[in-house]
Amino acid sequence: MTLASTTPLSALPLREELRGKSAYGAPQLTVPVQINTNENPYSPSPALIEDIVETVRGLAHTLNRYPERDCVDLRTELAHYISEQTGVEVSMENLWAANGSNEVLQQLLQAFGGPGRSVLGFQPSYSMHPILSDGTQTRFINCPRTADFQIDIAAALAAIEEHQPDIIMVTTPNNPTGGVTSLADIRRLLEAAPGIIIVDEAYQEFSSEPSAVSLIEEFPERLVVSRTMSKAFDFAGGRLGYFVAAPAFVEAVMLVRLPYHLSVLTQAVAIAALRHSEDTLATVATLVKERERVEASLTEMGFEVIPSQSNFLFFGRWEDQHQAWQEFLDRGVLIRDVGVQGYLRVSMGLPEENDAFLAAAREIGRKNS
Amino acid sequence: MTLASTTPLSALPLREELRGKSAYGAPQLTVPVQINTNENPYSPSPALIEDIVETVRGLAHTLNRYPERDCVDLRTELAHYISEQTGVEVSMENLWAANGSNEVLQQLLQAFGGPGRSVLGFQPSYSMHPILSDGTQTRFINCPRTADFQIDIAAALAAIEEHQPDIIMVTTPNNPTGGVTSLADIRRLLEAAPGIIIVDEAYQEFSSEPSAVSLIEEFPERLVVSRTMSKAFDFAGGRLGYFVAAPAFVEAVMLVRLPYHLSVLTQAVAIAALRHSEDTLATVATLVKERERVEASLTEMGFEVIPSQSNFLFFGRWEDQHQAWQEFLDRGVLIRDVGVQGYLRVSMGLPEENDAFLAAAREIGRKNS
Repeated sequence: MTLASTTPLSALPLREELRGKSAYGAPQLTVPVQINTNENPYSPSPALIEDIVETVRGLAHTLNRYPERDCVDLRTELAHYISEQTGVEVSMENLWAANGSNEVLQQLLQAFGGPGRSVLGFQPSYSMHPILSDGTQTRFINCPRTADFQIDIAAALAAIEEHQPDIIMVTTPNNPTGGVTSLADIRRLLEAAPGIIIVDEAYQEFSSEPSAVSLIEEFPERLVVSRTMSKAFDFAGGRLGYFVAAPAFVEAVMLVRLPYHLSVLTQAVAIAALRHSEDTLATVATLVKERERVEASLTEMGFEVIPSQSNFLFFGRWEDQHQAWQEFLDRGVLIRDVGVQGYLRVSMGLPEENDAFLAAAREIGRKNS
Repeated sequence: MTLASTTPLSALPLREELRGKSAYGAPQLTVPVQINTNENPYSPSPALIEDIVETVRGLAHTLNRYPERDCVDLRTELAHYISEQTGVEVSMENLWAANGSNEVLQQLLQAFGGPGRSVLGFQPSYSMHPILSDGTQTRFINCPRTADFQIDIAAALAAIEEHQPDIIMVTTPNNPTGGVTSLADIRRLLEAAPGIIIVDEAYQEFSSEPSAVSLIEEFPERLVVSRTMSKAFDFAGGRLGYFVAAPAFVEAVMLVRLPYHLSVLTQAVAIAALRHSEDTLATVATLVKERERVEASLTEMGFEVIPSQSNFLFFGRWEDQHQAWQEFLDRGVLIRDVGVQGYLRVSMGLPEENDAFLAAAREIGRKNS
């Protein structure tokens, strides 16, 4: 029985700015081909699964105890991974982790944004950035990307000069469009920024551009690089985001983080996943090859495909992208309509999933593009 | 190597109100007797451990996929548990869950508090309430408890009249003091409240007072009851807090929750823990008996012990409670100094841990009380 089900949301003393809003989230539908949330389509390897099971067996008797609050072991393993992956030597003190990069970003906004402060972003980009800004009462200022979805650096510098944003968010490779912002351009933004810059590298493992981690030494008071284990790392279900920055940034978020925010299981299982990073990241090369194959096919069909260094493609143009999204769904292929007029986003799936997507695109494109 | 370690926190553009603050948290020390964080001292049962391991084995291959975002299965199991535990029939739509009750409370503060809004609390109480208020820019107003740590209802009603708080926080049984607020008193606060009341029942399973869940039908627009699996439930390491309320409150927090906030593992392992609730909660009776035994011993030693319906005791008076805390620690017994002058808090441990605590208390008390 549902208690008190006749009380409507409008009867509650909700904050004014939330009234009439709807909850964020891509549709979670069960269809044959789900290539809508940029997950890695490859399941964890049998060796990793066995390691996870044994890890959990070893620690389940401690679940009555709070987790280690500062996640030192996990941050140490993330530091090893980042040192190896980027070639920049970092330590545990440069790393911070939370339940997905959403929580990492929320903590940074709580510490460096908030009422009376502002964030400058470059839309279209990760749709959670403005939502997280709203949630922390930080004013979000948009400096729109160019028609080919690049950051307009001249416009960005003018916006920085005009608005003096406390935080600048640069997503590279950019979601949903796939392109990268060069380190040279990030440096120009860092030189102009009055506050901090968060470079969101959720898709960095798929890119051939070097990581912005290499700029931390030069801009220790300015630069935070956020990353995630959800994409390349095959660990979306484990919920593990992190950032790399000067240790002072870690001290800062520790003032706002919820104590014991990362469970015993999250910490230990993420460490297990990091132990198998070599196996897991072998899928990245496969996905990059698939991206190249799908891009070539879409181009050959006459679609416009935005150059991507991620595990997804942004393609169009559709007269009515939402109708096209529905037509893909009608064929059992779930992709993503992020609300950018004329374009849809497709994540790279298994080769047979990509084939199903391409077959659908060929059919639908003939009618609608 | 630690990158950029010479940049001090003071060089970062941190929010003004965070400057000079230090991170929340009880010391995490490894000593023979750790009875400082109100954990359940009993490890999960072998049957539960086996169930957890098999649950993880069954789902580890899905860790590359995002979790089910709305946690429907988990909320359904929590609804069964609450219906059984409180005798009030509730459904999944009345339940919300997050990473510990800290995150649950933060989400409620984001939706119903925030800049320009206020929270009324009754200190000393759970020390995270003011911290969470600060973190969401909600003004925290304290209406101090009486000398015996009860809510002064007359003063509370006057404070409600004067401040018109958007949120009122009632912790019952209260942490760190252990006493309960009666349903009759909660009803008086509900009748006077202009906004919402969050009744924090983290320790409810240890209490003989009925749950405030029984008041939801009468006050559907006012009342949220928050709870946790960290204490009675033996699951502090799993990080699972929840609330029970009218479905409209669930709709409200879905506007501010981070998407995919509960991992695949957290959801599934919490469900496993709920499957074994009968076994786990058998420890509650043991802990209540231990509380009675320890209370009697402390009283016999001449200590003042605040009547408790939780799994901990608040006792004094110490001339210098922090020095006494250190003397316990010197004897290998870690208890909690929450900063209330003259008093310390001790969690109920295993019988032999409680014996060690009592032996230390006898020695230290002779010198200091």
